[in-house]
Amino acid sequence: MLYFINDYQEGAHPAVLERLAQTNLIPLSGYGTDEICQSAKARIREACACHNADVFFLSGGTQANRVVISSLLKQYEGVLAAATGHVSVHESGAIEASGHKVIELPSSEGKLDIRAAREFVSAFFADENNEHMVFPGMVYISFPTELGTLYSRAELLELRSLCDDYKLLLYADGARLGYALASPECDVTLSELASLCDVFYIGGTKVGALIGEAVVFPKGNAPQHFLTLIKQNGALLAKGRLLGAQFDALFEDGLYFKLGKHAVQMADELKEVFKRKGARFYLESPTNQQFIIIRNEEIEKLREKVQFSFWEKYDEENSVVRFVTSWATSIESINALEKVL
Amino acid sequence: MLYFINDYQEGAHPAVLERLAQTNLIPLSGYGTDEICQSAKARIREACACHNADVFFLSGGTQANRVVISSLLKQYEGVLAAATGHVSVHESGAIEASGHKVIELPSSEGKLDIRAAREFVSAFFADENNEHMVFPGMVYISFPTELGTLYSRAELLELRSLCDDYKLLLYADGARLGYALASPECDVTLSELASLCDVFYIGGTKVGALIGEAVVFPKGNAPQHFLTLIKQNGALLAKGRLLGAQFDALFEDGLYFKLGKHAVQMADELKEVFKRKGARFYLESPTNQQFIIIRNEEIEKLREKVQFSFWEKYDEENSVVRFVTSWATSIESINALEKVL
Amino acid sequence: MLYFINDYQEGAHPAVLERLAQTNLIPLSGYGTDEICQSAKARIREACACHNADVFFLSGGTQANRVVISSLLKQYEGVLAAATGHVSVHESGAIEASGHKVIELPSSEGKLDIRAAREFVSAFFADENNEHMVFPGMVYISFPTELGTLYSRAELLELRSLCDDYKLLLYADGARLGYALASPECDVTLSELASLCDVFYIGGTKVGALIGEAVVFPKGNAPQHFLTLIKQNGALLAKGRLLGAQFDALFEDGLYFKLGKHAVQMADELKEVFKRKGARFYLESPTNQQFIIIRNEEIEKLREKVQFSFWEKYDEENSVVRFVTSWATSIESINALEKVL
Amino acid sequence: MLYFINDYQEGAHPAVLERLAQTNLIPLSGYGTDEICQSAKARIREACACHNADVFFLSGGTQANRVVISSLLKQYEGVLAAATGHVSVHESGAIEASGHKVIELPSSEGKLDIRAAREFVSAFFADENNEHMVFPGMVYISFPTELGTLYSRAELLELRSLCDDYKLLLYADGARLGYALASPECDVTLSELASLCDVFYIGGTKVGALIGEAVVFPKGNAPQHFLTLIKQNGALLAKGRLLGAQFDALFEDGLYFKLGKHAVQMADELKEVFKRKGARFYLESPTNQQFIIIRNEEIEKLREKVQFSFWEKYDEENSVVRFVTSWATSIESINALEKVL
Repeated sequence: MLYFINDYQEGAHPAVLERLAQTNLIPLSGYGTDEICQSAKARIREACACHNADVFFLSGGTQANRVVISSLLKQYEGVLAAATGHVSVHESGAIEASGHKVIELPSSEGKLDIRAAREFVSAFFADENNEHMVFPGMVYISFPTELGTLYSRAELLELRSLCDDYKLLLYADGARLGYALASPECDVTLSELASLCDVFYIGGTKVGALIGEAVVFPKGNAPQHFLTLIKQNGALLAKGRLLGAQFDALFEDGLYFKLGKHAVQMADELKEVFKRKGARFYLESPTNQQFIIIRNEEIEKLREKVQFSFWEKYDEENSVVRFVTSWATSIESINALEKVL
Repeated sequence: MLYFINDYQEGAHPAVLERLAQTNLIPLSGYGTDEICQSAKARIREACACHNADVFFLSGGTQANRVVISSLLKQYEGVLAAATGHVSVHESGAIEASGHKVIELPSSEGKLDIRAAREFVSAFFADENNEHMVFPGMVYISFPTELGTLYSRAELLELRSLCDDYKLLLYADGARLGYALASPECDVTLSELASLCDVFYIGGTKVGALIGEAVVFPKGNAPQHFLTLIKQNGALLAKGRLLGAQFDALFEDGLYFKLGKHAVQMADELKEVFKRKGARFYLESPTNQQFIIIRNEEIEKLREKVQFSFWEKYDEENSVVRFVTSWATSIESINALEKVL
Repeated sequence: MLYFINDYQEGAHPAVLERLAQTNLIPLSGYGTDEICQSAKARIREACACHNADVFFLSGGTQANRVVISSLLKQYEGVLAAATGHVSVHESGAIEASGHKVIELPSSEGKLDIRAAREFVSAFFADENNEHMVFPGMVYISFPTELGTLYSRAELLELRSLCDDYKLLLYADGARLGYALASPECDVTLSELASLCDVFYIGGTKVGALIGEAVVFPKGNAPQHFLTLIKQNGALLAKGRLLGAQFDALFEDGLYFKLGKHAVQMADELKEVFKRKGARFYLESPTNQQFIIIRNEEIEKLREKVQFSFWEKYDEENSVVRFVTSWATSIESINALEKVL
Repeated sequence: MLYFINDYQEGAHPAVLERLAQTNLIPLSGYGTDEICQSAKARIREACACHNADVFFLSGGTQANRVVISSLLKQYEGVLAAATGHVSVHESGAIEASGHKVIELPSSEGKLDIRAAREFVSAFFADENNEHMVFPGMVYISFPTELGTLYSRAELLELRSLCDDYKLLLYADGARLGYALASPECDVTLSELASLCDVFYIGGTKVGALIGEAVVFPKGNAPQHFLTLIKQNGALLAKGRLLGAQFDALFEDGLYFKLGKHAVQMADELKEVFKRKGARFYLESPTNQQFIIIRNEEIEKLREKVQFSFWEKYDEENSVVRFVTSWATSIESINALEKVL
């Protein structure tokens, strides 16, 4: 069986696991106050070129989104997101359960339609009846998006400008950030992203860690008592070291970026394979997720030998399926895929 | 430096870490649907002698308490707990943040005063005005308690009977369950506990795992769509294997019980040391947490060589301090402590 | 000045106020347990032909929506609504603040697109990944809609059938119910509506009362301890008589229906006036709210003599404005309007 | 039948009802933006001698408490209250449902034990572990208390000082404020109270209105977009005039204070009656609620002729019962009571 179903099917990159093993018996203080966490945070600040950044480690993407969004929004505010955004559709209503509306806006290929966002916000603040509505408080983007696409530097600047004009916060969900930054199509660096966002997270779970997302407040702008809010959300680990050690390994000698690069290269190989087979792509994705249009009757047959995921119906006869590479994808598996197709 | 500050200062028991390493590169399905999780759940059902039990893995104690309590209570219900219970004082208001009152009741040495609980519940249901109040919906106990003490089998039966009489749920927080079951003073087995509770969790984080608590609904009585509720709380790990593999190791060949036994034996040695030094105990704890009364001026001096925690003021001149053993405590460290005292 | 700005600009219908005055000094029990509330509930059951109905009085529409929706949905469920629905846009996020997502669906002239709703629900339950999403739990409709339009009996049956097929609840927001039932275009009676819905409310605030909405569970299907949930939401009035007396007057001798009829007749007169003036209608509304397309430059001038509300931009040169009639609108004011136009 | 069961058994004071009737058909803008509300607010500012105060009208006490407390507290904060406080016991968990813990502290005769409160707060901020706990954010008092007692000016100053020392907010629940201010034992004026609190409410429902509580932020310190928060809580009335007109009448020519005075005089008469009959008082209440110790067997017999409320068990043979006077109590009814006793 070949595996292209997602980017969390394996455990951790060996160097990450090794760091856990090496540090395993050192007695450390709890709740993320230990030296290993401090070291990991220092490395992340360095990588982001944000020397005053507040960094917190959380366990997963939905948790990070819920904790960050609910901690930063005021009670009368909601978060703007693409209708296809993770917070809009695949978090079981986590944001709403924390009391806030996800204001779903038009999107294209996974990206928030920035013009539509500006129109919405501008109309909102012009509406004399807006006290009866949910105030926009934050713009949420995924980088890369759920469809593997990227915002350009110019688009991020436009979003920043929108946020500045209306005093909104800009938040980037970086569940697969490593796979964005490694893409040749990506024209922003980590430090540029950090300078443009009010808060973002660097995804570990899908980029080589067993678990863990590093939430970064680039300007040292974490909300007051954020640790208490993490605890209240049930998101504070007693053994903070579990997260710290993994990020410490990932941000040593640029491992995180190397893992990203590997996955994107494997995605390029995958694309070539599909192109050689004459496959149609649903969209042009420059990162580790590839969306292929496939005839319905081929799906079951292919599944006998390859794991991939059904994305959505394309038309009566065809479906969109997703193939994903990761830090763990080997060239051998891609060659094997070519034989199977 | 000697370390008796808590039971989560080290990483995982080596066998647990090894299981993670061995299974690391096996591609597995996500969100706890994989075979390793299935294996771990089967072992836990076996250990609890509950063959229809629903088992879910969560990351930490506060998370488990929040998810379980908020999923099981109706909106008009609260949870009864000892005023000293973890949910009452040390969870940053996680239960209230989920919308429910923690109804704090009198306690003694960490244990809920069962007579007071019965009086409260009985008075509540006799009050014709009770529609304006929070309905009792669940009894929460910690086993062992935050003060290391244990409910006897007879007391658990009394609690069960209270719950049956008023249709309340009985929930046991087993953050340190391994250290309870291993105590010679404990007169219930894991399967007896399972038969008495509606839901409980088996703590991993403090008993040899890096992270993880196994929530058990002994009668297959998990609430509908509990997985979705876990996700909504931000508590669902993409790599469920991280939790499954650890519990699979802990419940193979009784490792969990061995770790518990070791910690309790070390606690006995620790008690002997303190007794030989003439120390006064704040209370008689039969598990891995020991509470000693110490003169205020000795605290700082002792801290130069030993890590332990301040618990509370005892009187003007004395304080209560806590010394904790765990699966990782060595007899050498206890011998060394004797020399330091 | 002429007033067509909304249907809540005056106080109560004189008969309603008189009932308050007549009963003012009778000592009554609190919280809606009094005889006047009982009488009003009996009249409402009679009018709905639902002799086992549970009836509760609340203060306003957003409150009714929040209390009803949050009490009936399970934690993992959301409510489906037209994107233009009151719960979607004009309740300051009240539903989300109670923890539930409003799943906004396409609509046309204020009405939920029933085909789109069925497609959404059907796709949801077919999605094997749906445990990561918000479950549809209820369909919310406004009757009449925020745009004055009505669902036909056939459409309501279709909605009922959708709800039956997927075990969803059907809830009708009747803030202006009196103005729907009185419309010649309306082909359902109150008792038919009651037989089709799981819950609905009969709006008082906009139909002759000072305050008050009567929530009806036609099959005696109110959630357990609903009174406690009302209290918890801060929605239980000590002097329940205030609501009971008003509904008692409104449902005596069909007053509620007479008020509805008057308003719809006045709306017909208003339409004729606008037609004679050659005005364009934004849509065909058979109830008390009329939406006219007007040139932007005329708005300010008209406002010197008439109060009405701006609805939305139509195109660069024109706007949609709303004129509303109510139980309190006089034929004289409509004649006066004709002179002004 | 004689009625002493509570202070909300009648409707409104005739002058209040008359104001509603007089203004009934004036077309007014909605949601509390009308001139009558403006007038009422101006009168309240005048009465409080707070010319910059923000004033908002809400419908009931639990609603006011929920909206005020949840709007002012930060997510990591709770509210301190007497264990007997209304927010602690008789609001169906409204505060917790909004996400915040009510931190219940010792009390005596309904009054928060100020020394215990200071000890609690001081210990909290000294605890190095406090990030795992709920932060105290506000002190809630009832004035008068649920047991009819009053804080002295000196005690209020002490509370203010505690709040200043630890940056807590001081909030007074004035559901029966008129009955406090009218008591000869009360040594603070309304304007003094206003100068000592960060926020308080002037109760209308129990002091002559049909419905309504006036929330006052004496220093113009209402939270941003408080109207939106009111709406989100389902607490914003379309016909704000209903509340405005009543408070406009209550604060014209000191009516509110006269009603308070009358009730306290009637309570004094009531006390004399009981004293003459040799009754024992549960405590010394200087306001409109009187608590009498009565033999259990007398309760049912007395209930044949008088309505009063059972408060709590006193001992095996006796109970505490409550007799309440109000603006509506007549001397005739008290004379009649004397004959019945």
